[in-house]
Amino acid sequence: MKNKFVSFVFLLCSLSALGETGYELWLRYKPVENTRVLQSYQKNTKALIVTGSSATIIIIKEELARGIRGLLQKNISSTDKVSYDGTIIAGTIQSNSLIAKAGIDKLLLNTGDEGFIIVTRIINGKSCIIISGNSEKAVLYGTFHFLRLLQTEQSIEQLNILSTPRMKLRMLNHWDNLNRTVERGYAGFSIWNWHTLPNYIDIRYKDYARANASLGINSTVLTNVNANATILSSAYLEKVKALADVFRPYGIKVYLTARFSAPIELGQLKTADPLNAEVQNWWKEKAKEIYTYVPDFGGFLVKANSEGQPGPQDYKRTHADGANMLADAVAPFKGIVIWRAFVYSNENPVDRHKQAYDDFVPLDGTFRDNVMVQVKNGAIDFMPREPFHPIFGAMPKTPLMMEFQVTQEYLGQSTNLVFLAPLFKEVLESDTYSKGKGGTVAKVIDGSLDNHKLNGMAGVSNIGNDINWCGHPFAQANWYALGRLAWDHNLSSEQVADEWIKMTFTNKPSFVSAVKKMMLESRDIMVQYSNPIGLHHIMGTGHHYGPAPWVNNQRRPEWNPVYYHKADSVGIGFNRTETGSNALVQYQPEVRKLWSTMTDCDEKYLLWFHHVPWNFKMKSGRNLWDELCYNYYTGAERVKQMQDAWNKLKPFVDAQRFDQVRMLLKIQYDEAIWWRNACLLYFQTFSNRPIPAQYEKPDKTLDYYKSLRFPFAPGN
Amino acid sequence: MKNKFVSFVFLLCSLSALGETGYELWLRYKPVENTRVLQSYQKNTKALIVTGSSATIIIIKEELARGIRGLLQKNISSTDKVSYDGTIIAGTIQSNSLIAKAGIDKLLLNTGDEGFIIVTRIINGKSCIIISGNSEKAVLYGTFHFLRLLQTEQSIEQLNILSTPRMKLRMLNHWDNLNRTVERGYAGFSIWNWHTLPNYIDIRYKDYARANASLGINSTVLTNVNANATILSSAYLEKVKALADVFRPYGIKVYLTARFSAPIELGQLKTADPLNAEVQNWWKEKAKEIYTYVPDFGGFLVKANSEGQPGPQDYKRTHADGANMLADAVAPFKGIVIWRAFVYSNENPVDRHKQAYDDFVPLDGTFRDNVMVQVKNGAIDFMPREPFHPIFGAMPKTPLMMEFQVTQEYLGQSTNLVFLAPLFKEVLESDTYSKGKGGTVAKVIDGSLDNHKLNGMAGVSNIGNDINWCGHPFAQANWYALGRLAWDHNLSSEQVADEWIKMTFTNKPSFVSAVKKMMLESRDIMVQYSNPIGLHHIMGTGHHYGPAPWVNNQRRPEWNPVYYHKADSVGIGFNRTETGSNALVQYQPEVRKLWSTMTDCDEKYLLWFHHVPWNFKMKSGRNLWDELCYNYYTGAERVKQMQDAWNKLKPFVDAQRFDQVRMLLKIQYDEAIWWRNACLLYFQTFSNRPIPAQYEKPDKTLDYYKSLRFPFAPGN
Repeated sequence: MKNKFVSFVFLLCSLSALGETGYELWLRYKPVENTRVLQSYQKNTKALIVTGSSATIIIIKEELARGIRGLLQKNISSTDKVSYDGTIIAGTIQSNSLIAKAGIDKLLLNTGDEGFIIVTRIINGKSCIIISGNSEKAVLYGTFHFLRLLQTEQSIEQLNILSTPRMKLRMLNHWDNLNRTVERGYAGFSIWNWHTLPNYIDIRYKDYARANASLGINSTVLTNVNANATILSSAYLEKVKALADVFRPYGIKVYLTARFSAPIELGQLKTADPLNAEVQNWWKEKAKEIYTYVPDFGGFLVKANSEGQPGPQDYKRTHADGANMLADAVAPFKGIVIWRAFVYSNENPVDRHKQAYDDFVPLDGTFRDNVMVQVKNGAIDFMPREPFHPIFGAMPKTPLMMEFQVTQEYLGQSTNLVFLAPLFKEVLESDTYSKGKGGTVAKVIDGSLDNHKLNGMAGVSNIGNDINWCGHPFAQANWYALGRLAWDHNLSSEQVADEWIKMTFTNKPSFVSAVKKMMLESRDIMVQYSNPIGLHHIMGTGHHYGPAPWVNNQRRPEWNPVYYHKADSVGIGFNRTETGSNALVQYQPEVRKLWSTMTDCDEKYLLWFHHVPWNFKMKSGRNLWDELCYNYYTGAERVKQMQDAWNKLKPFVDAQRFDQVRMLLKIQYDEAIWWRNACLLYFQTFSNRPIPAQYEKPDKTLDYYKSLRFPFAPGN
Repeated sequence: MKNKFVSFVFLLCSLSALGETGYELWLRYKPVENTRVLQSYQKNTKALIVTGSSATIIIIKEELARGIRGLLQKNISSTDKVSYDGTIIAGTIQSNSLIAKAGIDKLLLNTGDEGFIIVTRIINGKSCIIISGNSEKAVLYGTFHFLRLLQTEQSIEQLNILSTPRMKLRMLNHWDNLNRTVERGYAGFSIWNWHTLPNYIDIRYKDYARANASLGINSTVLTNVNANATILSSAYLEKVKALADVFRPYGIKVYLTARFSAPIELGQLKTADPLNAEVQNWWKEKAKEIYTYVPDFGGFLVKANSEGQPGPQDYKRTHADGANMLADAVAPFKGIVIWRAFVYSNENPVDRHKQAYDDFVPLDGTFRDNVMVQVKNGAIDFMPREPFHPIFGAMPKTPLMMEFQVTQEYLGQSTNLVFLAPLFKEVLESDTYSKGKGGTVAKVIDGSLDNHKLNGMAGVSNIGNDINWCGHPFAQANWYALGRLAWDHNLSSEQVADEWIKMTFTNKPSFVSAVKKMMLESRDIMVQYSNPIGLHHIMGTGHHYGPAPWVNNQRRPEWNPVYYHKADSVGIGFNRTETGSNALVQYQPEVRKLWSTMTDCDEKYLLWFHHVPWNFKMKSGRNLWDELCYNYYTGAERVKQMQDAWNKLKPFVDAQRFDQVRMLLKIQYDEAIWWRNACLLYFQTFSNRPIPAQYEKPDKTLDYYKSLRFPFAPGN
């Protein structure tokens, strides 16, 4: 029997070694490998008490059983009274009398609606682990946190955990079109199969909700900000309802994008003027209709008067007029409106960097209470590195929502390993100096700086119907990071990476430390081989794939890379100081000071704010041109180092995911060389300086790089 | 230990009961359940001898080990000499000296290039199973056949199997666009991720090839017949090469669609005239280039002068002129050209049914030896039921390739359970009476009737990047059926279904018989609730989703459903007899006789060939209108019966697939009601007769059905 068992286990191991698809994300629940830890876990997981019959309670019960089955290889017995040490009790005070009597009431005064506690208590003389909170949703979050402790092999003895989310809205924005293409999506088709909804419920919908709940993500915008009014038709609202019904027990509210001209397109009105009574009434009736389908509908996300989208300015009204009209429509149902500040205009000759601020800051204080303004992390557009958006800290009367991009539109799309937590953290920790030192972007968006009850953080989703959800196996880490940082922006990038690696691959220390190093450096590396020293927006036109700094033939000036780098015989970079566009004036004086002179400016942002001569002496002692070469060559070289590091990790990873990452790192290296060569050859036509002799020369010509075309690049 | 083992097995079973994704297709290799059979298998699978190191040999070895590991739950030991009874020896005479000495030379005289034998022989006094053929590819086919025996619990004692394919080309046509949308695709995005090719090899490419090899499919056209010339650019040929390299060891050759105007679009020529020397030369050079990337490139599939595609007629040349030019370009490399006969013209007022015959039959004998003409199974367009295409049997000097549609464009797309083997068989068994009785379509396309060495059968793929490949779990059966019938068109639908069910679900007899009944009836049911009595092409315009017999506003007359049903106050149906379009004249007299009079015509095709009065008396005794009602109501009712039958099968199926099919059958029932009500309400406006009293009345109005819009229906 023993032999049979051993060979059977061997069989299974050999099967699983064949490959993991990645579908399980960070919720794989593989057997705990550390035997000392395992013993403690076994001792503390003897029985499970989860009472109640709501959909969320059933999910909690099933998730705990599933997690323990996978991690500890046993079926935990469900019971209703405490008979053993090691009983896990999960629920609310209302749903579970044992919890009501466990003396945790005081703790729960500090957890709000969504926070949870995980504590060890003696009940009936037995040591129990209690997972609780003031709502079932909170208990669900606690459940996933408890399982995360096991997945990352942390102690579950004498637990005393209290965790509350720092932000109210923790949100994904899907830029998914109704035809299932995904704008800036690099992981296949949209997971929303609108055609077969509402009657076919893809198991992915549930798995999506489960994955989000495991991170504390509680809101999702189903549709592209470049919106289609059809989503608001009754046929589609039935489909939306079906999704909302799946998501609800996981604590996730549904939002939709509202096309501003929907009253014309769907309602046959002649105008969409927000001050027109008929228009206002159309939206009120539409809101009422939506809430009959989805009683807890979250509200609308709106992109208006930006990149061709209709909006209130079409009728000489302000963004506030537009937002407030929609806000009034959803207010009776406690809905909110999230209005995007990502605007720039064809007709406006002012530096694009300044336009959103110019449009929105004067409106501060004029928005309804249930309006949030959603601001991208930087003023241009999700660049690999970008100074924080000057609107943060400049609209204290308006709750501002953070918009990060999880999908890697400008950061290597689906083929580059780039961990985004360092980018998110860099922005969140930036000090706006609104109200003096310490007014970080994080404090602006979590509402603590200006005392806003509405607050939150959104990430533009990187999810598609690829089997592994995100295309690149490491792209899952960015979904994970968005969720975890929205819950607690004080987590370090290192902590987030550590958790994700352990849950997604293994707890083996040598693997964890090697991969963590790769991940934590990856964003810097990407900046270095693509957009060093503050360069930005020099990628391919339209699809944004690869380098194309030479493009100068686009209809709108600010769509041309040359608009951003302004390379000439003197130097390179965008002068945004007083002698230039003066975008700097939009920042607080303390911030301005950091960046306003060429000599003192943080070199990360040097070419962002200054037009710098080719012979300018950098802190390294190199002149600017040589520094540029240094960065491009070093960035590419560091990708090679990532390849080498990964290749050494083969023993720790299943064959399928090992090979996927290996192939993708090869592509990343090729793309880094491409960025390096194309940019340096092009900028060299201005600098007229040689690439330093120690570097291998580009093996292709600038004309070759210019000739490349990618008519079917994804996500466009 | 025993307890631990049992609970461990229980754990695994409970995990697998949670759900199967369907990714494994019919190659699941689940443990054999019948213990008597299992004993025999264990006895006959003691050791494995597969010698050689070619890629195909390695695949054979791995597949046998994998199959036995899954089916028999053991690792079979690899060896190089016969020491046990129950040794499996796989290879060619060339690669394996044991096989060379096994006395099977004579058998192999009858297996051709691709056929295989599986025979039991005594070697060194031990009973061995030999899997062999005249090529490694043949051995691979034998390997999959052997594993199929185990999967379907057939005896492997005293084996004496010889199997050869009846057709040379067994092919999938992918209508996949370079942007990854799939024309008439209902299973997600294209599995070809052109953007990440050639350096990223998705594991699906290998799994795709493996699945095809398991059926004997040996050819694949990667791109849409509505072609884009970009696929012929060198950047894309590198990607094609990467796929061809993956497919080659599985015996699969790659073909591409050739856009006829490519010399203009890619080559900057002023013309694509096939008689122009520059054009001819461009294609010769292009072919040469392709073969540098893919030395065994299969050739081109061409849609020309059809539905807007460019072609030789743009230059007043014939289809033969166009095909022969391309044929000359690929001939030096043994490539072929497959030229589609699916043509009809905007300017041609003749019944669309007749146009392809009119265009192509006069060209018989004028095509080069390496040209095949690919003919859809019927003259209109993959209808739910269609008489065989009159070209079959009418071009004896030209090898004709069958084009079936595996994707269910007109047969319920991804939401209806419709098993297509009965449709394929109905066509294949149709007698063309070319050369007298017995000249079936099967004999035309397998080359036996007219002695063509080039012969084959293609299916338009239903494969996408949905996790289960085909969308509907039962759609996998249609891929399976296409492959199996291309190998042996004498297999019955019942045999094909039987194999597929056992491999895809379980061998349990009560499940197999119930599901087989559903599958074998499903196509008739679909015809009955959508297009009974010979009705055709009355579906929604463009997307072809759902009923829309009222549409009469399309630019081209033959794009309008009213063109096909011709309902009026007198009756309904398309008169294709001598008094009408006389499409019947294109068939042999014996065939014509079957269909030429209203009273004798097979009622399946009655409205296909006749305009029949509403009060015409049918064989059932009902008048035509009542018969129409009978069919629509009975068809819908039979879907209900399928639902009931499936619901009883819950104990036999994992939860995930059970639920998928349950939800889809509900949708199918709703769609059947929709077809029934919409069609009857509409045709009633002509018949002016009541729906017989025994039937429930439609609960929606004709206006309601006419108002339905599906702007984002898939596959359009």
